Amino acid sequence: MGRVVAAVAYENGRRVAEFALSEGKSWSEKPGHFVWIGIHEPEEAELRDLALQFGLHPLAIEDALNAHQRPKLETYGDALFVVLRTAHRVKETTEFGETHIFVGTGYVISVRHGPSSSYSKVRERTECNPSLLKHGEDFVLYSILDFVVDNYTPVVEAIEAEVTEMERRVLKQPLTAEDIERIHALRRELMVIRRTVTPTAEVCKQLEHTESGCIDPVIHPYFRDVADHVKRVSDHIDALREIVTHTFEAGLLLESSRQNQVQRKFAAWAAILACPTAIAGIYGMNFDNMPELRLPYGYYMVLGVIVGLCGFLYWRFKRWGWL
Amino acid sequence: MGRVVAAVAYENGRRVAEFALSEGKSWSEKPGHFVWIGIHEPEEAELRDLALQFGLHPLAIEDALNAHQRPKLETYGDALFVVLRTAHRVKETTEFGETHIFVGTGYVISVRHGPSSSYSKVRERTECNPSLLKHGEDFVLYSILDFVVDNYTPVVEAIEAEVTEMERRVLKQPLTAEDIERIHALRRELMVIRRTVTPTAEVCKQLEHTESGCIDPVIHPYFRDVADHVKRVSDHIDALREIVTHTFEAGLLLESSRQNQVQRKFAAWAAILACPTAIAGIYGMNFDNMPELRLPYGYYMVLGVIVGLCGFLYWRFKRWGWL
Amino acid sequence: MGRVVAAVAYENGRRVAEFALSEGKSWSEKPGHFVWIGIHEPEEAELRDLALQFGLHPLAIEDALNAHQRPKLETYGDALFVVLRTAHRVKETTEFGETHIFVGTGYVISVRHGPSSSYSKVRERTECNPSLLKHGEDFVLYSILDFVVDNYTPVVEAIEAEVTEMERRVLKQPLTAEDIERIHALRRELMVIRRTVTPTAEVCKQLEHTESGCIDPVIHPYFRDVADHVKRVSDHIDALREIVTHTFEAGLLLESSRQNQVQRKFAAWAAILACPTAIAGIYGMNFDNMPELRLPYGYYMVLGVIVGLCGFLYWRFKRWGWL
Amino acid sequence: MGRVVAAVAYENGRRVAEFALSEGKSWSEKPGHFVWIGIHEPEEAELRDLALQFGLHPLAIEDALNAHQRPKLETYGDALFVVLRTAHRVKETTEFGETHIFVGTGYVISVRHGPSSSYSKVRERTECNPSLLKHGEDFVLYSILDFVVDNYTPVVEAIEAEVTEMERRVLKQPLTAEDIERIHALRRELMVIRRTVTPTAEVCKQLEHTESGCIDPVIHPYFRDVADHVKRVSDHIDALREIVTHTFEAGLLLESSRQNQVQRKFAAWAAILACPTAIAGIYGMNFDNMPELRLPYGYYMVLGVIVGLCGFLYWRFKRWGWL
Amino acid sequence: MGRVVAAVAYENGRRVAEFALSEGKSWSEKPGHFVWIGIHEPEEAELRDLALQFGLHPLAIEDALNAHQRPKLETYGDALFVVLRTAHRVKETTEFGETHIFVGTGYVISVRHGPSSSYSKVRERTECNPSLLKHGEDFVLYSILDFVVDNYTPVVEAIEAEVTEMERRVLKQPLTAEDIERIHALRRELMVIRRTVTPTAEVCKQLEHTESGCIDPVIHPYFRDVADHVKRVSDHIDALREIVTHTFEAGLLLESSRQNQVQRKFAAWAAILACPTAIAGIYGMNFDNMPELRLPYGYYMVLGVIVGLCGFLYWRFKRWGWL
Repeated sequence: MGRVVAAVAYENGRRVAEFALSEGKSWSEKPGHFVWIGIHEPEEAELRDLALQFGLHPLAIEDALNAHQRPKLETYGDALFVVLRTAHRVKETTEFGETHIFVGTGYVISVRHGPSSSYSKVRERTECNPSLLKHGEDFVLYSILDFVVDNYTPVVEAIEAEVTEMERRVLKQPLTAEDIERIHALRRELMVIRRTVTPTAEVCKQLEHTESGCIDPVIHPYFRDVADHVKRVSDHIDALREIVTHTFEAGLLLESSRQNQVQRKFAAWAAILACPTAIAGIYGMNFDNMPELRLPYGYYMVLGVIVGLCGFLYWRFKRWGWL
Repeated sequence: MGRVVAAVAYENGRRVAEFALSEGKSWSEKPGHFVWIGIHEPEEAELRDLALQFGLHPLAIEDALNAHQRPKLETYGDALFVVLRTAHRVKETTEFGETHIFVGTGYVISVRHGPSSSYSKVRERTECNPSLLKHGEDFVLYSILDFVVDNYTPVVEAIEAEVTEMERRVLKQPLTAEDIERIHALRRELMVIRRTVTPTAEVCKQLEHTESGCIDPVIHPYFRDVADHVKRVSDHIDALREIVTHTFEAGLLLESSRQNQVQRKFAAWAAILACPTAIAGIYGMNFDNMPELRLPYGYYMVLGVIVGLCGFLYWRFKRWGWL
Repeated sequence: MGRVVAAVAYENGRRVAEFALSEGKSWSEKPGHFVWIGIHEPEEAELRDLALQFGLHPLAIEDALNAHQRPKLETYGDALFVVLRTAHRVKETTEFGETHIFVGTGYVISVRHGPSSSYSKVRERTECNPSLLKHGEDFVLYSILDFVVDNYTPVVEAIEAEVTEMERRVLKQPLTAEDIERIHALRRELMVIRRTVTPTAEVCKQLEHTESGCIDPVIHPYFRDVADHVKRVSDHIDALREIVTHTFEAGLLLESSRQNQVQRKFAAWAAILACPTAIAGIYGMNFDNMPELRLPYGYYMVLGVIVGLCGFLYWRFKRWGWL
Repeated sequence: MGRVVAAVAYENGRRVAEFALSEGKSWSEKPGHFVWIGIHEPEEAELRDLALQFGLHPLAIEDALNAHQRPKLETYGDALFVVLRTAHRVKETTEFGETHIFVGTGYVISVRHGPSSSYSKVRERTECNPSLLKHGEDFVLYSILDFVVDNYTPVVEAIEAEVTEMERRVLKQPLTAEDIERIHALRRELMVIRRTVTPTAEVCKQLEHTESGCIDPVIHPYFRDVADHVKRVSDHIDALREIVTHTFEAGLLLESSRQNQVQRKFAAWAAILACPTAIAGIYGMNFDNMPELRLPYGYYMVLGVIVGLCGFLYWRFKRWGWL
Repeated sequence: MGRVVAAVAYENGRRVAEFALSEGKSWSEKPGHFVWIGIHEPEEAELRDLALQFGLHPLAIEDALNAHQRPKLETYGDALFVVLRTAHRVKETTEFGETHIFVGTGYVISVRHGPSSSYSKVRERTECNPSLLKHGEDFVLYSILDFVVDNYTPVVEAIEAEVTEMERRVLKQPLTAEDIERIHALRRELMVIRRTVTPTAEVCKQLEHTESGCIDPVIHPYFRDVADHVKRVSDHIDALREIVTHTFEAGLLLESSRQNQVQRKFAAWAAILACPTAIAGIYGMNFDNMPELRLPYGYYMVLGVIVGLCGFLYWRFKRWGWL
């Protein structure tokens, strides 16, 4: 069974009662009241019951049952259906959850899927602020949105730390297959989180301009604030993506430059070592008549020539910067 | 002859009769009735006859005869002409078909081309749902659209499996020509399916806002739902495209890095092996006066020097990470 | 002198008379008549005369004299001035021509420049269709547009054949300079044809929505049809461009991979061949005291060691996949 | 002191008087008159005086004093302030100048900075055309704009010639550092001229739709004509940029392919030459018991083996396409 | 405690009094007066007090306390909240500060964070210009904006100098790891400053069209002027980014070309040096019957052959351009 995290009725910004799911409608219809119901991975029957009570649209219900939606805002008459994706960092990977929120006159229903943080903290915090909670449903929606967006920041910061570390490694030392695999993985991770954050920004922007019966225009600056926050996160992600791409390109150029250095160094040493081999080869020939071989100091002269030539080449290559 | 898959009249959400093509118009004009005709690769005469009965626009008929259209929505007065491309996976390739749908007051005509799945399943499913089928033509259009879009998902998932496998191979081992050819083929496939899905998303979006006589605004959220679904597929494809591109780039960097490693390793061994050759070459010279040659342990000393030098070089290169 | 291809007056969809250019205005003003004048590379005097008769705008006349315009649609009051670029394939290259069309109440004047096909076929075809030609000037404009756009298809298909052939070559064998030059040339050709087709799509789209006195709204779906056709051509070109780019990238990766393979193979053989050289070098030294040299089977033992070592290395490299 | 190129009053399309700057306002206010003042690098005092006479906005004056503006169109009430950048080719580089034009009821003031061509030619040409000059200020603005845009064409054509030459070189021969430097310089030049032309296109497009008191709608097609011209120049530049980028990529692929060819050729020759060295090394060993050495024709047999082996390798590599 | 830089009341463009923060509201409400308060890194209490006095929105206050905002313009009723990022150059890096400006009827409050320049210079300059300062709050906002944007120019110019220097180095000599690291750092720096300047351009553009109670339309051209200025800076940055990217690509191509040159040179020398080694090896064999060895001038003939062969190869490679 889906866990009903909480089903609470509020009046004038203050918590007045917890109730069973089946009483939701009646509480939400009392004048000046609204209900906030939180469920975690609900059963189909529960959702269908709520749909019946609050007149939720069957398509929204189907989405809420299936999860794997993109962040989006849908309006059904005066009611809103919001899909959000939550992110948090577990060890070296990012885990994503999903939250579906139904908002209408007198009710907020939040449905969580997967490994997202509970919204009990959000509830506590908003209950501490009766003057704002008085606004009702829209303020609850804002609070959840703000909480979800706030949780993106530590995720992006963790990725940034890794990106910076990779950038340092790439610039300082020859790349190993592991390094490249790690950069590739970071790139993928940034892609995934960007695909979560970008449509969320869109949702916030739409909420900023939504003129629905359940959104008081006074709350618009709050949605603008969240929109601004998520835009900041999104900018951050874009910057990191650009850095990773640049790092890749720098890596390619560095490998190419290193290759050139090794190649030049190798060519220089090959030339230096080819000298004694070639000269020694000549004086290793077995001709009867090779007068140099008979000279008393021929050997030393040849050694001298070899050393001299090698030395000259060494100096030449050093000056060219090949060694 | 084109196969008439089915020609059925509906009243109040219930199937009332099958009829011959030539009676289509009369059935569609009975009050509260509408007809749904499905044809597979029709003959020109059949289509022209339907065009005459239902007043279909000659340009739409010409499109329906030729196939090879882009997905599009065209409005001719109150009538709609929708072109869709269907996709399904056969072994390791994706096959594409085409469906043309004429929708007007009282009729839905679907014309299939090429290897697409039959819509008899769609018909069955919608007939099971008389409360919705009551809506009429627009709901049938929605059902077909939903079916076509649903069929994109397994295709994209099959491609994703291959992409993930390629990604793993690229990161783990030197690239062979076959690998590169396969990535290239995946890239092409993603390009083709993207060119199918993107305009479909456009069609769905337009339907969401179409105010035609034969589209009841109550059905708009259903089209929005399909639009959302196709957007999700399209996002998935874009993500895969990005991954393939990144994989390509990672492959390039890895090859470059591997090249550097082989080069360094080769240079190191060449240096180590050049030593005995050069030294042995010198003591292979035939000078009369080479005192070292006469030393009783000269040979062993030289062997020692060679082994020592090689050992030293080995240690040096090891420390540099060249070996 | 510019060749007057034809100057014909139509009434009620039927050809009523050929006339001399100077009588154009009088024919066009007869009630229910319109004239269609076709000229190939006209003299300035002829154009100026027509401008005077039909009140064509001096800027349009200047454009029509100079050619080398971009495809565009310009409206001067109720009159339209359309510039199109035509393409056809001559051997392995694409040739481009230009057509300027003046359309106003009672007249269509088409001016061809360069190696474009004559529009006599268009005239014949439209004259066969009096029920449509009855529409008048706008239908003639549509027919020319349709003809021009139809001619893009074989050009793009010829390029596609070459692209596919290049793709195959790139994937199957090391790249030669000629291959790369050919891909580069294909890329350039696609760029040029794209720069022709893209603004044409713009022109068609504008015509679809033009509300000029000489465009009957009934003809709008026809322009939409051409717009759709040109969009398909343009999509095809974009797909080919993408394929060429991907082929380039695949080529780069393949060359890199081939380089690695050659490098590894070379390194392996160099190592195998360096063995006998190094060992033989040592036993070629002339030390007095080298006991191995005196062993009766020393030579065979050394040969054995060499063969053994080479064999071992061969097996090792084989297992690594270097050979 | 800034050179007053000319200060002329016009009435009904005809030049009626030259005057001193201080009389500008009085001439411009005579009914049916307008003045056209041309200045080259004016002193601040002169400009401030004109600003006082004609009521020019202080911000426009400040811009006109400083130069280094982007091409732009600014409207101050009914008055316009236009900034243009002029380009002309000097040897192998492009020089840029700047022109600021103030247009209002009764006056056109053009202020030139830097090495731009004088507008005396424009003045002559427009004075030859009294029927158009009758239009007044807007036609003068059009004439200057047309002149500036006309001057872009030879610059772009000169760059095109160089790009084509570079393209040919890149495809035909290994790249030298000088080649690459030149391509890089061309790329930079194209970037700079594009940054000049693109905002100019924007200016022309705005003028086409400007509804200011001093722009007669009859002149709009003329501005559209210039806009079209500048769009053509801008398309040309974009095409060249694309070609340079493709040339770069072709160059990279060609270098890679050439590297592979050299590498294969080198490997093949190294293998062929390693044979005699290895075999000769073996028969250069000093073992007492090497029966082959004693064979009367051993030497010739070994020579034969060497030649045979080298020949076989040569044939093998030839067949592989390595040589 | 946050440093109150200045709190001054103005009447009719003239400074009338400095005052304590707590008196701000009363001064701002005097008819024809407005106050300009400047604070550096304020305490929360101070800001909350000002918020209470002037009715600043709590979300704006929260932003002003946290810093790390993107440049943005927010309107709360008639009041504006502007966030700007300041930049200045310290040695080889760019430091960024943040300024938050609250503007409403009767007040301007500027809050600086981090290492930005003080606005006392702005205050002095505006106070020198009573005729403009008369405009009131909007002119102060313009002055601060203008000052912030002016300060971007030297930063971008410093980066340009470095970019130009890097470009020169890349084109002239083989790349070192340090060079690549520096280019990478420049790229990053350009990315960061661009992310500062681009949203600032957005802010200026919005201000140009803001119709708030506290922005007199007469001041709009001034905001347009700043917008134009920031657009120029932004264009400059984009140009530099493009140059850095092109430099990267040129570097890659140059490294590839250099690699080819070294490879060809190396191959040529290896071939030249392999000759004497191979030939000498053959005549170093110990066959009994090698007639050449007995020829009196055999040695000299072989030396001649070697020299001739090497010479021929040298000439050949020279002609190919390998040496």
